Amino acid sequence: MPEALLLAQLAGHDLAPLTAPRDTARFSTDATRRGGAQPRLVLRPVNTAGVSAALAACFAVRRPIIVQGGLTGLSGGARPRAGEVVLSLERMTNVAPVDRIAAQVEVQAGATLQSVQQVAQAQQMIFGVDLGARASATIGGMIATNAGGIRVLRYGMMRAQVAGLEAVLPDGSVIDAMRGLEKDNAGPDLRQLFIGSEGTHGVITRALLRLHPAPSLQINALCAVPDAARAQELLAHMRARLGPLLSACEGIWPEVYEGAAARIGTPPLPPGAGLYVLLEVQGMAEVLREEAFEAALIEAYEAGLCSDIVVSQSASEYDKLWALREACVAYTFSLGELVAHDLSLPARTLPEFLDAARSLLARIDPEAQPFVFGHIGDGNLHYIVNTGKGSEVTGGLNALAASMGGSITAEHGLGQDKVRYLPLVRTETEIALLRRLRAALNPADLLGQGRVLPPE
Amino acid sequence: MPEALLLAQLAGHDLAPLTAPRDTARFSTDATRRGGAQPRLVLRPVNTAGVSAALAACFAVRRPIIVQGGLTGLSGGARPRAGEVVLSLERMTNVAPVDRIAAQVEVQAGATLQSVQQVAQAQQMIFGVDLGARASATIGGMIATNAGGIRVLRYGMMRAQVAGLEAVLPDGSVIDAMRGLEKDNAGPDLRQLFIGSEGTHGVITRALLRLHPAPSLQINALCAVPDAARAQELLAHMRARLGPLLSACEGIWPEVYEGAAARIGTPPLPPGAGLYVLLEVQGMAEVLREEAFEAALIEAYEAGLCSDIVVSQSASEYDKLWALREACVAYTFSLGELVAHDLSLPARTLPEFLDAARSLLARIDPEAQPFVFGHIGDGNLHYIVNTGKGSEVTGGLNALAASMGGSITAEHGLGQDKVRYLPLVRTETEIALLRRLRAALNPADLLGQGRVLPPE
Ligand SMILES: Cc1cc2nc3c(=O)[nH]c(=O)nc-3n(C[C@H](O)[C@H](O)[C@H](O)COP(=O)(O)OP(=O)(O)OC[C@H]3O[C@@H](n4cnc5c(N)ncnc54)[C@H](O)[C@@H]3O)c2cc1C
Ligand SMILES: Cc1cc2nc3c(=O)[nH]c(=O)nc-3n(C[C@H](O)[C@H](O)[C@H](O)COP(=O)(O)OP(=O)(O)OC[C@H]3O[C@@H](n4cnc5c(N)ncnc54)[C@H](O)[C@@H]3O)c2cc1C
Repeated sequence: MPEALLLAQLAGHDLAPLTAPRDTARFSTDATRRGGAQPRLVLRPVNTAGVSAALAACFAVRRPIIVQGGLTGLSGGARPRAGEVVLSLERMTNVAPVDRIAAQVEVQAGATLQSVQQVAQAQQMIFGVDLGARASATIGGMIATNAGGIRVLRYGMMRAQVAGLEAVLPDGSVIDAMRGLEKDNAGPDLRQLFIGSEGTHGVITRALLRLHPAPSLQINALCAVPDAARAQELLAHMRARLGPLLSACEGIWPEVYEGAAARIGTPPLPPGAGLYVLLEVQGMAEVLREEAFEAALIEAYEAGLCSDIVVSQSASEYDKLWALREACVAYTFSLGELVAHDLSLPARTLPEFLDAARSLLARIDPEAQPFVFGHIGDGNLHYIVNTGKGSEVTGGLNALAASMGGSITAEHGLGQDKVRYLPLVRTETEIALLRRLRAALNPADLLGQGRVLPPE
Repeated sequence: MPEALLLAQLAGHDLAPLTAPRDTARFSTDATRRGGAQPRLVLRPVNTAGVSAALAACFAVRRPIIVQGGLTGLSGGARPRAGEVVLSLERMTNVAPVDRIAAQVEVQAGATLQSVQQVAQAQQMIFGVDLGARASATIGGMIATNAGGIRVLRYGMMRAQVAGLEAVLPDGSVIDAMRGLEKDNAGPDLRQLFIGSEGTHGVITRALLRLHPAPSLQINALCAVPDAARAQELLAHMRARLGPLLSACEGIWPEVYEGAAARIGTPPLPPGAGLYVLLEVQGMAEVLREEAFEAALIEAYEAGLCSDIVVSQSASEYDKLWALREACVAYTFSLGELVAHDLSLPARTLPEFLDAARSLLARIDPEAQPFVFGHIGDGNLHYIVNTGKGSEVTGGLNALAASMGGSITAEHGLGQDKVRYLPLVRTETEIALLRRLRAALNPADLLGQGRVLPPE
């Protein structure tokens, strides 16, 4: 159906449609920066009713649709395919006042992470998920990809933050799961069907998000660590000492460390270590013995788990260590067209994987240069490679991670770009069940076509 | 199909079948103690292959099946209906050695909670969910009901404990989602389909459970509190002070307090308060300022949030306060045939609900006597009533809770007994989606028939 007819049908709704190429160009790719099809129609509803009308109209004529949030996704999930209508949530950005008693906040799905962080902060609360793309990434996109970030260790991924969720099914019907009760076992939890579904089960339109009391005390430290095995021992040691107050454990390997440190000024620790581990403790000043963090680190030093440590002594030193971590992303992005991987490994095989990956790279492309950093506390490596043999390297690394019990995507999702590797980590029976699930929720497969599931 | 034929087909498998009435009698009800149909065949596999064979054989002849764990369920989910084959997991109780690096333990689904707690403890770790039925409740039953218990505040419900899960679909095919990675966003998370499905989506056969470092310091306290609104302020205050180290917040109302206290000896606090709130802090001795818990409680006292406090000063005092909490269940069970409800309320309406419920009871049955206790930190009330007008009281309380934004079952699930109330808390669109989900996973509706979903 031509766009004009679809638009005529939707005339009564405030959808701020865009059709001119100069207006729709900015919707044609995501943070992967790979070019997608330029959409011929972008619909931009302001509320759930608008989303429902748009979906129902497309459903009636079997027109494929792709939902877009902040376009910061790293797997090509939101990148349009030819013929798709784009449904952008960029005008659905409302954030309600914080409900202090429930420790929750209600948002429209197009609200950015940063806007949620700001309202939470104003009430001495924090939102549990944080990531570098905060200024653009939307809550809907983050729920749809079950985003992770730097504090999964303590607060879990997006799945753990969602108290309530509203979603529109492809036929336009609305699932209102916004009760937001801490406990509600009246039947299987429908919210779970949308979390991590990358826009293929429905459009998330609203959410009730959990908030936590803002920690009055937070300290971080950077440690120079001989190798990944020692980094894991360091993590286990810190966890045994600090319990749930250990809130982050990030790893940065030398190639990235040097590049990232250069971007922020003087490096906090000299180069030369096997890797650098950024640890954080968050707690309440009344309860947390401040000296315990440093004491635990000193024990780790004495046990040979790290060779050098810098502990933040002020808010500005604290911010600077986090700036170093954020510079890792900026640094690797600045290197141009690198081949990125978002792998996760079980703790027991992670060190071995790193060695095997080096040998694999050397075999496929002796010129290949790896840049590695990531959420080592969750076994999640952002393994980025400068190579001319992208598809061989990707195939090889994904197969290697899968063979060691890992996953081909820890947090970014499959999108379009990783779909072909799904059989490396899911059995035929699992993929068949995923298809049955897709058929139950999205029967004509109009929403997010070509994402998540490989062609049959 | 007669049982003998089914058995003949399954002859090659170690299923330890029971058919004699004296052997099958103990499988005919659960902790609700309402009589179900006595099964004519009980199959008791020892492993996943046995479960798969049993399900496939029943599927081939369209024979309905019900899965049973420890039969401690409180909604009649596992109670057999006429004609159902019982599949009991009582012989699938293996617990593997703890994986210390991953902080996980692999179990067969018939393993009891207590057996998991024991292996964890031997490694200075703990399992996050605890509940009074620990000696019999199985991990499979607890996952199937998304069980809650006393430390949801800190560790979440069963959903948060499941790192990996294996389930057998009604046709006998096996879903192996046992990778157990902390992060794995390769497609929608199939584990979520089985958690909280009360045996209607598949039989859970194995699980990988998360463990936490055992807290080296735990202190609890009992507070006499004027009313529920003040109890909520007390919770908010303690949470703001202790952050994630606050690990339990249980409420006991006077009728139950007096009965429960009598069972354990001298009451820790004199009678006469509006309600009693049991609080707990768990942390690491090196990190947690021990005095902070008591200091925060004194602040609460000074602010009028409680009128009396007893803080445990030793392990035996600590155990005694928890024994009081456990005695609540034993006490109400001892009162005979009471009508139980497992309600949850949003924090903002909980106090109001308690008043409205009293008026409602007075209207329906002036003789009715409520016995109330529960996980007040999660808005979860076990609202138990001594009344001759059970069905009117239940209908009235469920409708009241639903109208105030609550749920008719916070943690016990719908089973067979609460199915009719589902429309109070789920829209038609939600119920339709639940049906589509059921059809996708359990197409002939043979597994758990008559549970969770109301008849069409
Ligand atoms: C600098 C940088 C740092 C990053 N760091 C992290 C990190 O630490 N951890 C992490 O997990 N990710 C990270 N990412 C990836 C990205 O930010 C996340 O995937 C984020 O969740 C995407 O949100 P978005 O709104 O931009 O979604 P989009 O890119 O617009 O869409 C992503 C997917 O979600 C779907 N979708 C979007 N909105 C909805 C909706 N309302 N309903 C249904 N489906 C929807 C889309 O169809 C698409 O499949 C990073 C990205 C960048 C650029
Ligand atoms: C004294 C006492 C205290 C309790 N306290 C709490 C509490 O604090 N919190 C709480 O949440 N509950 C509590 N309960 C309820 C009960 O313990 C839980 O519901 C528990 O999860 C049931 O486990 P089970 O193994 O006994 O399951 P069962 O009663 O055998 O079965 C329960 C349901 O799960 C299904 N099921 C069982 N095993 C499997 C499997 N392997 N695969 C698929 N489906 C399966 C059954 O079909 C049924 O629908 C309490 C019960 C008692 C008696």
